[in-house]
Amino acid sequence: MNQIFTFITEAAPVAEAVSATTAEAALIAVEASKIASDAYFTANNVWMMMATALVFIMHLGFASVEAGFTQTKNTVNILFKNTLTPVIGLITYFVVGFSLMYPDATPGFWFGFDGFGIASRANSEAFEYTAGAYTRWTDFLFQAMFAATAATIVSGAVAERIKISAYMIFTVIFVGLVYPIIGSWKWGLGALNEMGFMDFAGSTLVHSVGGWGALAGIIVIGPRLGKYVDGKVIDKPGSSVPLAVIGVFLLWLGWFGFNGGSVLSGDPALTSLVLVNTTLAACGGALGGFFTGYWMFKRLDFGMVLNGILAGLVGVTAGADVFTPVESIFIGSIAGVLVVFSAVTLDKFKLDDAVGAVSVHLTCGIWGTLAVGIFGNASDGSAVPFLPQLYGVLICGAAAFSSAFIIFIILKKTIGVRVSEQHEVEGLDSHEHGIRGYTIVYDK
Amino acid sequence: MNQIFTFITEAAPVAEAVSATTAEAALIAVEASKIASDAYFTANNVWMMMATALVFIMHLGFASVEAGFTQTKNTVNILFKNTLTPVIGLITYFVVGFSLMYPDATPGFWFGFDGFGIASRANSEAFEYTAGAYTRWTDFLFQAMFAATAATIVSGAVAERIKISAYMIFTVIFVGLVYPIIGSWKWGLGALNEMGFMDFAGSTLVHSVGGWGALAGIIVIGPRLGKYVDGKVIDKPGSSVPLAVIGVFLLWLGWFGFNGGSVLSGDPALTSLVLVNTTLAACGGALGGFFTGYWMFKRLDFGMVLNGILAGLVGVTAGADVFTPVESIFIGSIAGVLVVFSAVTLDKFKLDDAVGAVSVHLTCGIWGTLAVGIFGNASDGSAVPFLPQLYGVLICGAAAFSSAFIIFIILKKTIGVRVSEQHEVEGLDSHEHGIRGYTIVYDK
Amino acid sequence: MNQIFTFITEAAPVAEAVSATTAEAALIAVEASKIASDAYFTANNVWMMMATALVFIMHLGFASVEAGFTQTKNTVNILFKNTLTPVIGLITYFVVGFSLMYPDATPGFWFGFDGFGIASRANSEAFEYTAGAYTRWTDFLFQAMFAATAATIVSGAVAERIKISAYMIFTVIFVGLVYPIIGSWKWGLGALNEMGFMDFAGSTLVHSVGGWGALAGIIVIGPRLGKYVDGKVIDKPGSSVPLAVIGVFLLWLGWFGFNGGSVLSGDPALTSLVLVNTTLAACGGALGGFFTGYWMFKRLDFGMVLNGILAGLVGVTAGADVFTPVESIFIGSIAGVLVVFSAVTLDKFKLDDAVGAVSVHLTCGIWGTLAVGIFGNASDGSAVPFLPQLYGVLICGAAAFSSAFIIFIILKKTIGVRVSEQHEVEGLDSHEHGIRGYTIVYDK
Repeated sequence: MNQIFTFITEAAPVAEAVSATTAEAALIAVEASKIASDAYFTANNVWMMMATALVFIMHLGFASVEAGFTQTKNTVNILFKNTLTPVIGLITYFVVGFSLMYPDATPGFWFGFDGFGIASRANSEAFEYTAGAYTRWTDFLFQAMFAATAATIVSGAVAERIKISAYMIFTVIFVGLVYPIIGSWKWGLGALNEMGFMDFAGSTLVHSVGGWGALAGIIVIGPRLGKYVDGKVIDKPGSSVPLAVIGVFLLWLGWFGFNGGSVLSGDPALTSLVLVNTTLAACGGALGGFFTGYWMFKRLDFGMVLNGILAGLVGVTAGADVFTPVESIFIGSIAGVLVVFSAVTLDKFKLDDAVGAVSVHLTCGIWGTLAVGIFGNASDGSAVPFLPQLYGVLICGAAAFSSAFIIFIILKKTIGVRVSEQHEVEGLDSHEHGIRGYTIVYDK
Repeated sequence: MNQIFTFITEAAPVAEAVSATTAEAALIAVEASKIASDAYFTANNVWMMMATALVFIMHLGFASVEAGFTQTKNTVNILFKNTLTPVIGLITYFVVGFSLMYPDATPGFWFGFDGFGIASRANSEAFEYTAGAYTRWTDFLFQAMFAATAATIVSGAVAERIKISAYMIFTVIFVGLVYPIIGSWKWGLGALNEMGFMDFAGSTLVHSVGGWGALAGIIVIGPRLGKYVDGKVIDKPGSSVPLAVIGVFLLWLGWFGFNGGSVLSGDPALTSLVLVNTTLAACGGALGGFFTGYWMFKRLDFGMVLNGILAGLVGVTAGADVFTPVESIFIGSIAGVLVVFSAVTLDKFKLDDAVGAVSVHLTCGIWGTLAVGIFGNASDGSAVPFLPQLYGVLICGAAAFSSAFIIFIILKKTIGVRVSEQHEVEGLDSHEHGIRGYTIVYDK
Repeated sequence: MNQIFTFITEAAPVAEAVSATTAEAALIAVEASKIASDAYFTANNVWMMMATALVFIMHLGFASVEAGFTQTKNTVNILFKNTLTPVIGLITYFVVGFSLMYPDATPGFWFGFDGFGIASRANSEAFEYTAGAYTRWTDFLFQAMFAATAATIVSGAVAERIKISAYMIFTVIFVGLVYPIIGSWKWGLGALNEMGFMDFAGSTLVHSVGGWGALAGIIVIGPRLGKYVDGKVIDKPGSSVPLAVIGVFLLWLGWFGFNGGSVLSGDPALTSLVLVNTTLAACGGALGGFFTGYWMFKRLDFGMVLNGILAGLVGVTAGADVFTPVESIFIGSIAGVLVVFSAVTLDKFKLDDAVGAVSVHLTCGIWGTLAVGIFGNASDGSAVPFLPQLYGVLICGAAAFSSAFIIFIILKKTIGVRVSEQHEVEGLDSHEHGIRGYTIVYDK
């Protein structure tokens, strides 16, 4: 290549080109095509890798939000779970999840990505899509970052009383089997996909699947001690508002990768529209949460603004590629309203969600998925039909909730799902980890 | 395309190319050009989207710095403002700001981006620049992230006593009208641009505009209670140094996008020079603040190091594309010196800036803009004339300060700009938000 | 170009192409080649700039981990050091380090990057590699971010008792001279490179060099007061677990740039394999640290999980380009085991490492480098020989340790390396900086 490349980039005056023979012209053209293809492939893959990095940082976002919104005596316990969740999720997805979710992507192996995870660099060439936008390794890592998210959603809801061993076993099964099997029905080009169900980046497949898991968890495990007393809902103040804010902003940032990367290429028009929609929906959610919180509680309720942002992000996720920006603001705003009503409703049923995860991810995940059937237009301009969206919500919901419920019930009957009353009252940190989250009180 | 593409990428041995006809050679060449153009467009757009994400995270940076540098009793209030500022800013800029600032970019509509924000995906194709570097959506989002910054600068200065309703109304007007109109004079190719005024990424258009707004705010609102007593300046210790450090580093990181994205393409030579200049100016600012703080206060003053970094970043922003790296270190160092003197001078005039925003953004924004007229060379190698830089500083300053002053005065005469004395003393968090920033003291 | 470009992108119907003359075909082909080359260069450079930004944020990661793992009374002091470390490191590397490390990269100048750092924009063109993947400015900034890392590693180990002036002088010499000279032996294509030593992204050249410096530091300076009493190791609880978690996740994120950028291009297959290996090694390290900590201390030891993640990342760094994913999990797991044993062993010898930096960076840096000689295959498929890896570890270790030891001894004999006993007991923050890290206890 070098000779022609030098000719092209260094010399290549018009005069010489004019005097080129047909064979020389063809050679230059072929060489140009190869460089162009490599450049295109590289640019696309760079975008997908950066999107992967952004989704990764969402795990710090979840950790920060959950630790910020829960009590100081359990801070270490929550951070411990949120650190091990991506660890378990990534390894589990490497060993079984990826193959289960994308059966076509691993020809010759059904169970276990490239033979129970045993791959050598020698065949990494085979992992490049021949005509695709990014490598198979990028594909795996991007999807693996998604997978761990579903379990993280559960961790927030059941925080402050779940036994850590029970949570870890749940995570292995939920990320390793439940999430990828449900995901395969749509993204693995299974039955839901055949049916016309649309879920761009996972309002249903990621967020409501996680949300259903969270709902099953809080039903089986029960509310925190002292949460519901004499018909009143007792507030459990979070340890650190700044930590929660750091978490929400990191999640918003990460969502640029979550939705932007779900284009599965660097396509300029579509990726940039998706980012605009994602951002504006978050803004709408913040305003929806703010006004609803103010109307309901008569105060500048910050928690509802923060959860409103997350609600708007979850809401837009199913159709960030098919909504207009104005629709995205509207869909986000409604999500911001819904998240407040959902939180209040859950408390009425004594369903104790420590961080509002069910309201954010389940309620708004359902809303966003249905919104695609109300507002969305397919790429050919035709309206997206509503019924497949509804069926998708119901089918995935039934599968995710029942799976999670059964896992939690079995765990309850065997190793137990809840810490002792003493540990819960005194805090999980001292008892299970032997350290405290903060030691920042000064001696006089 | 597929047939030729396959020919190119899979077969395309030299032998076949040599035997190609002229028509075949031309077809391959045309196809190669299309792939190359798509690749170039994608790579540029990826850079601009990542720059946008980096500018977004600056809002978390501002939130962290301001909450870290102010008192614990007002932490929630500050974070509340800093969370709603980008929310309001982004939506306002979508509805009116973008059209006001770039009138040419939205042909057929003067007021309201694409018709009061009503855009459909159908015409998203029209939002791609035909020969440009990135899509119109990317353009909008990048500029919208900038817009919200101007209001954020104000929020820090007036923290701990401003009424939140007044701040929110101010933000809507300042981001929706004042910032984009002033910005249009240069970046919208208006009169300042005609005059030869240069401001690469906004030392004046963003930072000093925000800084003038902040100055107007602290004049109208007045100092915090107990700040100036018997001729002495009373220190109000910040709640959390780690939070401030997180903020400063995130701002530094975000500045890679703020300045690097202002190249408005992924041009390798210019973007990478801009990143080097930006980084080295931050380092110079840190050293300038460190040594000046040590000389003045005889201690290792960390606040001056942190504000020195921000000062250096603001200082280099006007000319990061035309300075050399050595000049950037020097300009940053001077900014680091200026920020200390500015802070001391403001206190002499009993102008109470809770986080040093005026010194960082206004003083160093002016310095950086003038520095372009002292050190900068235009792309043709000629020196940048000084007077247009001075005129730009004065004109933008007069417009921004008087606008902000009038808005704040009107707010003062109507709904009021300041919380009650009791609320200020006891802290805004308990009174306006009903929660505290931290609950991390353990029960014995 | 415009005419042809227009022809290509707007018209260019197949019919016209077919009727093109040979000269026209050649011109289109040449033009396509130029666009393709620019696109490729841009995409590669974008990746390298984003990798640089990711490595930058590791400095916030180090600051957060170190402040989180150490005592509240010294928080400001630690953050002060960790903020000035990249400042000093970047400027020092600009002035001398880059030229020392890559003598070939700055032809005509031996000492001082482009003439003691004096570069003008006029010759920035010359800084573009003619046939390379990214600009010289990008190259400099990426390498400069690495350089500052080596000193940061030292700062954690010697925290809570080192004199800040001694630390700063050490940093100037270590980053300006020791790190780049050792680095030049391999990455500057010196003697270790000739010998066949392999160190992809610096398990030895960055991490163990920093780790040896840390070991020399804690030997010369001695343990913190009250750390080893009557043969017992006294625990010094860290100030904030959330801060440490933020730090570890930011380091993990930054490592995507640290290792991914060390490919020195955006090559899709290799960069994405490197990201997968890096991530899975971190997961392996977390599990290794978790199980070893549980087995040894009979508790869910969070510190060992967090240091296990860092251990896995350091371990995979030497061979992230030549390991398979399964090997990476294994190598990371072993690193997670080693970091626990190393920490316990150091305490047996009364070597007081305040944050576990020696165990993470030195022990696991050695392990990772040797692992390349055990598992790694060169790009031609042949096994990497073990002995050059061992020699590289020993030679770099001898050089780094003896240099650091001599610097610290000279500092001890001259200005002193340790704060007074009173300052150490009462905390460095009040005495050296005049402020406290937190003021978040509410008045009743």
